[in-house]
Amino acid sequence: MNVADFIKAYESWCPADLALADDPVGLQIGSLNQEISRVLVTLDIREQTVAEAIAKDCQLILAKHPVIFRPLAGMTDADSQEAIVRELVQHDIAVYTCHTGIDILQGGLNDYFCELLDIKDVENFNDEGLGRIGNVEMQTVAQFSDKVKQGFGQERLRTVTYDHSLEQKISRVAICGGSGGNFWREAREAGADVYITADIYYHTAHDMLSSGLLAIDPGHYMERLFVPLVATKLREVTTLEVVASKENTNPFYDV
Amino acid sequence: MNVADFIKAYESWCPADLALADDPVGLQIGSLNQEISRVLVTLDIREQTVAEAIAKDCQLILAKHPVIFRPLAGMTDADSQEAIVRELVQHDIAVYTCHTGIDILQGGLNDYFCELLDIKDVENFNDEGLGRIGNVEMQTVAQFSDKVKQGFGQERLRTVTYDHSLEQKISRVAICGGSGGNFWREAREAGADVYITADIYYHTAHDMLSSGLLAIDPGHYMERLFVPLVATKLREVTTLEVVASKENTNPFYDV
Amino acid sequence: MNVADFIKAYESWCPADLALADDPVGLQIGSLNQEISRVLVTLDIREQTVAEAIAKDCQLILAKHPVIFRPLAGMTDADSQEAIVRELVQHDIAVYTCHTGIDILQGGLNDYFCELLDIKDVENFNDEGLGRIGNVEMQTVAQFSDKVKQGFGQERLRTVTYDHSLEQKISRVAICGGSGGNFWREAREAGADVYITADIYYHTAHDMLSSGLLAIDPGHYMERLFVPLVATKLREVTTLEVVASKENTNPFYDV
Amino acid sequence: MNVADFIKAYESWCPADLALADDPVGLQIGSLNQEISRVLVTLDIREQTVAEAIAKDCQLILAKHPVIFRPLAGMTDADSQEAIVRELVQHDIAVYTCHTGIDILQGGLNDYFCELLDIKDVENFNDEGLGRIGNVEMQTVAQFSDKVKQGFGQERLRTVTYDHSLEQKISRVAICGGSGGNFWREAREAGADVYITADIYYHTAHDMLSSGLLAIDPGHYMERLFVPLVATKLREVTTLEVVASKENTNPFYDV
Amino acid sequence: MNVADFIKAYESWCPADLALADDPVGLQIGSLNQEISRVLVTLDIREQTVAEAIAKDCQLILAKHPVIFRPLAGMTDADSQEAIVRELVQHDIAVYTCHTGIDILQGGLNDYFCELLDIKDVENFNDEGLGRIGNVEMQTVAQFSDKVKQGFGQERLRTVTYDHSLEQKISRVAICGGSGGNFWREAREAGADVYITADIYYHTAHDMLSSGLLAIDPGHYMERLFVPLVATKLREVTTLEVVASKENTNPFYDV
Amino acid sequence: MNVADFIKAYESWCPADLALADDPVGLQIGSLNQEISRVLVTLDIREQTVAEAIAKDCQLILAKHPVIFRPLAGMTDADSQEAIVRELVQHDIAVYTCHTGIDILQGGLNDYFCELLDIKDVENFNDEGLGRIGNVEMQTVAQFSDKVKQGFGQERLRTVTYDHSLEQKISRVAICGGSGGNFWREAREAGADVYITADIYYHTAHDMLSSGLLAIDPGHYMERLFVPLVATKLREVTTLEVVASKENTNPFYDV
Repeated sequence: MNVADFIKAYESWCPADLALADDPVGLQIGSLNQEISRVLVTLDIREQTVAEAIAKDCQLILAKHPVIFRPLAGMTDADSQEAIVRELVQHDIAVYTCHTGIDILQGGLNDYFCELLDIKDVENFNDEGLGRIGNVEMQTVAQFSDKVKQGFGQERLRTVTYDHSLEQKISRVAICGGSGGNFWREAREAGADVYITADIYYHTAHDMLSSGLLAIDPGHYMERLFVPLVATKLREVTTLEVVASKENTNPFYDV
Repeated sequence: MNVADFIKAYESWCPADLALADDPVGLQIGSLNQEISRVLVTLDIREQTVAEAIAKDCQLILAKHPVIFRPLAGMTDADSQEAIVRELVQHDIAVYTCHTGIDILQGGLNDYFCELLDIKDVENFNDEGLGRIGNVEMQTVAQFSDKVKQGFGQERLRTVTYDHSLEQKISRVAICGGSGGNFWREAREAGADVYITADIYYHTAHDMLSSGLLAIDPGHYMERLFVPLVATKLREVTTLEVVASKENTNPFYDV
Repeated sequence: MNVADFIKAYESWCPADLALADDPVGLQIGSLNQEISRVLVTLDIREQTVAEAIAKDCQLILAKHPVIFRPLAGMTDADSQEAIVRELVQHDIAVYTCHTGIDILQGGLNDYFCELLDIKDVENFNDEGLGRIGNVEMQTVAQFSDKVKQGFGQERLRTVTYDHSLEQKISRVAICGGSGGNFWREAREAGADVYITADIYYHTAHDMLSSGLLAIDPGHYMERLFVPLVATKLREVTTLEVVASKENTNPFYDV
Repeated sequence: MNVADFIKAYESWCPADLALADDPVGLQIGSLNQEISRVLVTLDIREQTVAEAIAKDCQLILAKHPVIFRPLAGMTDADSQEAIVRELVQHDIAVYTCHTGIDILQGGLNDYFCELLDIKDVENFNDEGLGRIGNVEMQTVAQFSDKVKQGFGQERLRTVTYDHSLEQKISRVAICGGSGGNFWREAREAGADVYITADIYYHTAHDMLSSGLLAIDPGHYMERLFVPLVATKLREVTTLEVVASKENTNPFYDV
Repeated sequence: MNVADFIKAYESWCPADLALADDPVGLQIGSLNQEISRVLVTLDIREQTVAEAIAKDCQLILAKHPVIFRPLAGMTDADSQEAIVRELVQHDIAVYTCHTGIDILQGGLNDYFCELLDIKDVENFNDEGLGRIGNVEMQTVAQFSDKVKQGFGQERLRTVTYDHSLEQKISRVAICGGSGGNFWREAREAGADVYITADIYYHTAHDMLSSGLLAIDPGHYMERLFVPLVATKLREVTTLEVVASKENTNPFYDV
Repeated sequence: MNVADFIKAYESWCPADLALADDPVGLQIGSLNQEISRVLVTLDIREQTVAEAIAKDCQLILAKHPVIFRPLAGMTDADSQEAIVRELVQHDIAVYTCHTGIDILQGGLNDYFCELLDIKDVENFNDEGLGRIGNVEMQTVAQFSDKVKQGFGQERLRTVTYDHSLEQKISRVAICGGSGGNFWREAREAGADVYITADIYYHTAHDMLSSGLLAIDPGHYMERLFVPLVATKLREVTTLEVVASKENTNPFYDV
């Protein structure tokens, strides 16, 4: 199977034109003619991910986050991003990135989150189709935070509530994987009591509260669920050997 | 004492032109001729802060964060920011904001942080003069994180390290109160082993690590130390009754 | 009746989306929930208008010109526009502004002008729908100027003619209330012999003449006819007590 | 004498670099080598001015206002500005324009206005050097308006005062020939009680009054005094026959 | 016949709105009412062209290239472009320019080139409709270069090939008269083996070769074929005396 | 010797900050720590240059033209520029580019051209320092063209003259290697009779002639003299084995 065949198979599930305009997606490194037999699925491509791909003899990495966010002015090892690309090129490892396409896809990452959290009656809450909104049984923020911890498999998360109280009742929930802070107004206008997203900015959190919106921030690394979702799918639509990355690329650690 | 006299006294310590260009600072609400006898010092002006000013009969609020970040297109209660301004105007409470002036000031907030953390040989690390860099005794990130928790009086904080390990040794520390993530390159170029700042973005944290820089993020609310620092100073330079805000305006709460 | 009900009634006649894009219109000050019983109708909101609203116990002002033309960077009394807004907020007087909506409205201000001046076969002359054009009986500029004086109830006006002669014959008339100078080419292309508008710039007047177009400038205050037009309408569509402003806000006076 | 010599003589009095940056000034039509013996001095170049230059056999026109304000996309007679330029080219009449240079010049047009109005202690009031400010004896606006009418030789002018009253006392006067409305804040900050300038916009007049500034607007055609001032000077510095234009180019006429 | 009639006749063949947006075309100098009996057809209007028009008593010049490419800030003889316009105005010679309209026209200049070069199955290769693509019999670049030399009646031309070899076989040819270098990607995507256009930039030629595209550059003056094409057509659609320019305006000469 | 040492040696002759702002120069591919023993000097980096570097076992290429002109959005083989970079990275060949630095350098490429052409009294003719101007003995364009052919070792070149005549006398010569067409006005203002530069645009050639300036265009590939100039210098300042590229990268070939 070559890279072109792989892309065709993947895009039969998640079409390339779903991603936001100007989003750097698709084949970023490599050649359409390259023969591949093993693909690594990962959220991020960091130094340890490249090492993992080499060690596990993967000829292609399928990543959610672009390996080239901004065009590269050079290809030296003095810039860490260029250094990562250099190493991939030198080991002839191709890279395909999904980014916002998989967020927008019906049945994609945001819908997978909704499923994990038992959110019902799910629909888009913004024009871009990046976020989702739906209903849960009436419960306290405390109860729903526990649900989120369980769903995302993490011990801690950050909340945005009045007076740090977790007793407020909620039943309508918006969610947007990754840094969705800028969409909070659309979430509120769609009726959300609480908004699950990451990288919420301090002053944005104030604005949310003033407008009556609570929030739960599990951290950007919530998106690691991209890996099992997409690995499973790839096994269905291709004959490649699919390797789910084992590297933890979360740069943050709470102490 | 009227507002004009108050401003004169305050600015004899922290001149108005220290703040970054285009930063919305100075008298944002009220009249220079207004007589005042009691001033509330606070990091943020939120709904509860306005209520506190009314309850404690303060005629002026001195805040670090602007109450008007962006010009207001109206003065209705449908917008939460406008609603806060409306209530202040209706209770004839004046507002003076410092914002980046107090960060840049020699002997201001960043220097106060350095003092609390026993950082020595302190100097600016960026052209704007917003951040500081200096030296501490060689120690592990774990040890220094404890120091930061103690200095800022908080139980938890977020770190950016390799493999979530806290054993790396550091001795050169940069610090920038508030959202200083965008200055990380200057911090690194000035030799920092670790950078203390808030609201660090996920992909920025990756870039820091790739370049060899660690980070400690105590949260934006680290800036609440503005209150004791400035309240103390105001008691020296004015005859006003100075009230240090007791409201917790941190929108975030980790659970 | 609350402000929301009032707006609903007014906009059933003059829809909010008629105004030009980016035109600052609608509820600029106050709350949709505010109870009101008396409304002041006025062209401008100046200091004397605020005093009139207070004296006559009006809880809402309906004005043609916005009270906030450009977003406000503060709310101090050092800026005269902010000072007017401050006083309105402190007296809890709401403000709703129409601006270009009422100019564009079929049956609005420009059509009212045409009726007063016996202009027939009226149609729009520009894409924005701000101005009107139509026919009058063939007559000299002198005769038509008298008609305009009579229609607008004023003793003097400014003309743009060749050699200051008023003897030229005209029969096709364009009109645009307020500062319509920039639309002169559209008026000319639609066949106008003479164009009635205000605040005509010196070099624009030269350009008009060179292209064969005459003009009559009754002054921007011609728009005071907004008051009787809208007061009458409000009495039909609401149960509020409607007060037509008695204040003369024309800043100009010819001596 | 050729055009180059003429320019040298004129610019020895009023240097070319005095004008504002990007102001279209200097030789706009003609050739430096053209021999000339008679020059027409005029405020504007309109159709009648061109006819006058031809009739009086002038080979050069010295005008205050540019004959080409904006670059010309063609040279047809369908555009009135192009048609004027065509006729000048066809009659081989050169054009030199002064525009803001003569306003800024010490001893230029604004200073000449001050002299006519007995304004003393004259200095610039804005950075561009376009306007002047000075003192007159304490008097009412009514008295000073009479002085302005007399100085500019006109029967009527427009005032901006409170309640159309002319009884307010003034003693500090700012002046800027032409359309100086945008400079009103600088005039006020320099202490002006009243500001003499033309083409004042309706909402600007409101802002002036709210800030405490009165105004007198004699109309843009006040600048016709350019003609005697410059004609006199040209007779001193050149040997040319100097013709002061007799055409009235004021497009406005009050009825 | 007046200029308006002439334009009507010409535009019945080549409509004015064919040209690219913002392209300076149509009547650039003169008057619609001007009577004309003799027209000069030319590629460029240079000094010698103006002299030719005067000598041959032509009242109108029909040119492919605009005589005013960029709006003119003046009308002096210090600028060579303005000097050409001045002379035309002084001799009352009107100018009408076609520019990209004739390139885009079906049956226009590009199609005429295709005919001369026996290119078959001709269609547009870019959205603007400026260029054409079609097929020729399979042949070497050497053979086709000879064909181009013969078609354009010139002894030399410049090629872009691998290792300066002319032996490569081609059968699909794109062509764009004038400076069409920027459209090379569209030509390649439409399947061109070789692209005929002028003013090819050095680095563009490298990019062409790297993508597999060859090129033949006959020079911009290839467009002189505009003259016989349009002169012939004008003789059909008007009763004017049509003069085909005899001046060689090619600024380049290979030695 | 590593790349850092090499750069230090090269920049002791031609400092990095000589190049124009935003010019993509310096180390574009590779690592400062890379050990090198053999360097290839070339004007361009095309596919055949990469092959040459590989064949001759060069670890670094020193090129005049950047290998990355515009930042790269990807690193695939579908884009020819990216494909060249990929191959260099895969063979671990570093690239350092000089671009405008060597043009500006005193004793650099433009000065070398002047020496070859016996131009005396050489000085800069534009602010950027890219071009040079000087004097030769009074001679015809024909004679000087022969000199240029001889100096640049080529059989043919393109001239810009009046009526394709080569008999005009010249004595003052401007020169700018590469595409210097945009600087022609500065060359003319500095007194040039003839301007030697490449890639002259058709309409620019017309403008030159109208202003009195002749031109000689030897083609952009005139810059191949970069190779012997820099190779010689490198042998002086480093101990590396210096290989002068033998590949002809001129994409153009006249037939």
